[in-house]
Amino acid sequence: MALKMTIDEMTAFFDEVFPQVKGDFTVEALEEMGVTMRLNVSERHLRPGGTVSGPSMFGLADVAVYVAVLGMIGPEALTVTTNCSIDFMRKPVANADLIAKCKLLKLGRALAVGDVLLFSEGSDKPVARASLTYSIPPK
Amino acid sequence: MALKMTIDEMTAFFDEVFPQVKGDFTVEALEEMGVTMRLNVSERHLRPGGTVSGPSMFGLADVAVYVAVLGMIGPEALTVTTNCSIDFMRKPVANADLIAKCKLLKLGRALAVGDVLLFSEGSDKPVARASLTYSIPPK
Amino acid sequence: MALKMTIDEMTAFFDEVFPQVKGDFTVEALEEMGVTMRLNVSERHLRPGGTVSGPSMFGLADVAVYVAVLGMIGPEALTVTTNCSIDFMRKPVANADLIAKCKLLKLGRALAVGDVLLFSEGSDKPVARASLTYSIPPK
Amino acid sequence: MALKMTIDEMTAFFDEVFPQVKGDFTVEALEEMGVTMRLNVSERHLRPGGTVSGPSMFGLADVAVYVAVLGMIGPEALTVTTNCSIDFMRKPVANADLIAKCKLLKLGRALAVGDVLLFSEGSDKPVARASLTYSIPPK
Repeated sequence: MALKMTIDEMTAFFDEVFPQVKGDFTVEALEEMGVTMRLNVSERHLRPGGTVSGPSMFGLADVAVYVAVLGMIGPEALTVTTNCSIDFMRKPVANADLIAKCKLLKLGRALAVGDVLLFSEGSDKPVARASLTYSIPPK
Repeated sequence: MALKMTIDEMTAFFDEVFPQVKGDFTVEALEEMGVTMRLNVSERHLRPGGTVSGPSMFGLADVAVYVAVLGMIGPEALTVTTNCSIDFMRKPVANADLIAKCKLLKLGRALAVGDVLLFSEGSDKPVARASLTYSIPPK
Repeated sequence: MALKMTIDEMTAFFDEVFPQVKGDFTVEALEEMGVTMRLNVSERHLRPGGTVSGPSMFGLADVAVYVAVLGMIGPEALTVTTNCSIDFMRKPVANADLIAKCKLLKLGRALAVGDVLLFSEGSDKPVARASLTYSIPPK
Repeated sequence: MALKMTIDEMTAFFDEVFPQVKGDFTVEALEEMGVTMRLNVSERHLRPGGTVSGPSMFGLADVAVYVAVLGMIGPEALTVTTNCSIDFMRKPVANADLIAKCKLLKLGRALAVGDVLLFSEGSDKPVARASLTYSIPPK
C-alpha cells in the first residue's frame, strides 16, 4: 500500500480539523505504516521542573497514530481513538521536544492498531510507550 | 483508613504543585478510597463540535486518581503515574463539563490502582473508562 | 434491552463452542449488561502455593465479558476479543475458586466494552481488574 | 549489563518454579534486554479451528517478559506481573507454534516494562502485541 497523503497535505488537513493544537505538532517523516512526529514543547505542555506533562505525552502518541492511519487511508476525520494503553517509564528531559516514533501493527477495514515510543529529543531511552486502537468509519 | 487531607488542603496543594492547570479541576467530593472530580471545560479542552478532547479526558482521569491517592496518603508530590489504560466509548456531550468518578481498588506501599468512569455532566452513560497505576515513593 | 439467552442456553452454547474448557466456568448470575462467573479452580489453573495463575485469571475475565455480550446479543460465536488491559493487584487466596463480576459499559453495533473485577471466593478485595473490548461481527 | 543466566539455567529454573507448564515453552534466544520464546502448541492451547486461545497467547507474552527480566536480574521467583495490556490483531495460523519476540523497554529497581509481539511461526504479521509491567521485589 502506498501513502495517500504527503506531509504538506497532512499538515494542512490537521490544522484545519484541529485548529486548537495548530503548531503543537510537526510531522518529521511519514512512511508506509508509520510516522515520526514532534511535539514542539511550549509552556502549556510542561509541569514543574520543565518536564512534559502526562496529557501532553498522551496527546502526542494519539496524534502520531492518527497521522499514521490517515497517511494510509486518506483524510478521514471521523477516525477516532477507542483505546489507549500507555506506560510512563522515565522522566522526560527538561525543556526538550518530544519525538514520537509510531508503527502501525494492524490496518484493518474497521480497526487500526499502532505502537508508539516517545523520546526526549537527543535521548535514546524511551520516556513512554503507548498502544492505541483507532476505529475507522465504514465508507 | 481515614482521609489525610480535606478538599481545601487538596486544592491548595494541587494549585501549588500544578500551577499550569489551576482552575481546570474541582474536587467535588473526597472520600476514603475515592473522589469525584470535575473538569471545568473551557475552550482549550475542546475539539471541533464542542466536545472534550482525548488528552483532556486523559488528564481528568489522571488527576482524579492522583487526588484519590493523596487523600489517603497525604501530600506526596512525587507520586507518579506509571500506566494508564483508557477506553473512549462515547462522544462527550458538547459544551458540558466532564465528571470523573474514581475508586481506588488497591493502595499498597509502592503501587496504587484506581478505576475511573468519566461522564458528561447530566448524563449517566460513561464517555470513557480508565484504569491508572501510580507509583508511590518510599518514605 | 432484555436478555436473549438463559443461563442454560448460554452454558449449552459455551460447551459446544469451547469444548476444551468445558466444566471450567459456571455462570452464577446473568443479567442485563452484566454477569457473575465462577472459575472452578482445579490443578491446571494453579501455580506453586496453590494460587490461580495469570493466564487463568485472564481467561476468566475474557469469558465473563464474552458471556455478558452474548447474553445481550444472542449466540454470535464470531464475537472476538480485540483488547484487554488487566491489573493484577493481590495474590489470590490459595485453593479458592475465583469469582468474576462483569459489567458492560458499552454495547455498540461493532464494539462492546466490559469491566471485570476478580475476587477469590469469600474475599471482598479484588485480586485483579480487567477491561476488555470485543468486536461484534456485522449481521 | 550482561546476562545473568544462560538458556539452560533459565529452563531449569523455570521448570522447577512452574512445573505445571513444563514443556509448554522453549527459550529460543536470550539476549540483553530481550528474548525470543516459543509456545509449543498442543491440544490444550487450542480453540475450535485449531487456533491458539487468548489465554495461551497471554501466557506466552507473560512468560516472555518474565524470562527477559530474569535474564537480566537473575532467578528472582517473586518477580510478579502487575499489569498487562494486550491487543489481539489477527487470527493465529491453525496448528502453528507461536513465537514471542520480547524487548525490555525499562528495567528499573522496582519495575520493569516489556513489549512483546506474537507471531504464528512462519508469518511476519503479528497476531498480537502486549506490554507488561513486572514488579521486582526489593533485595
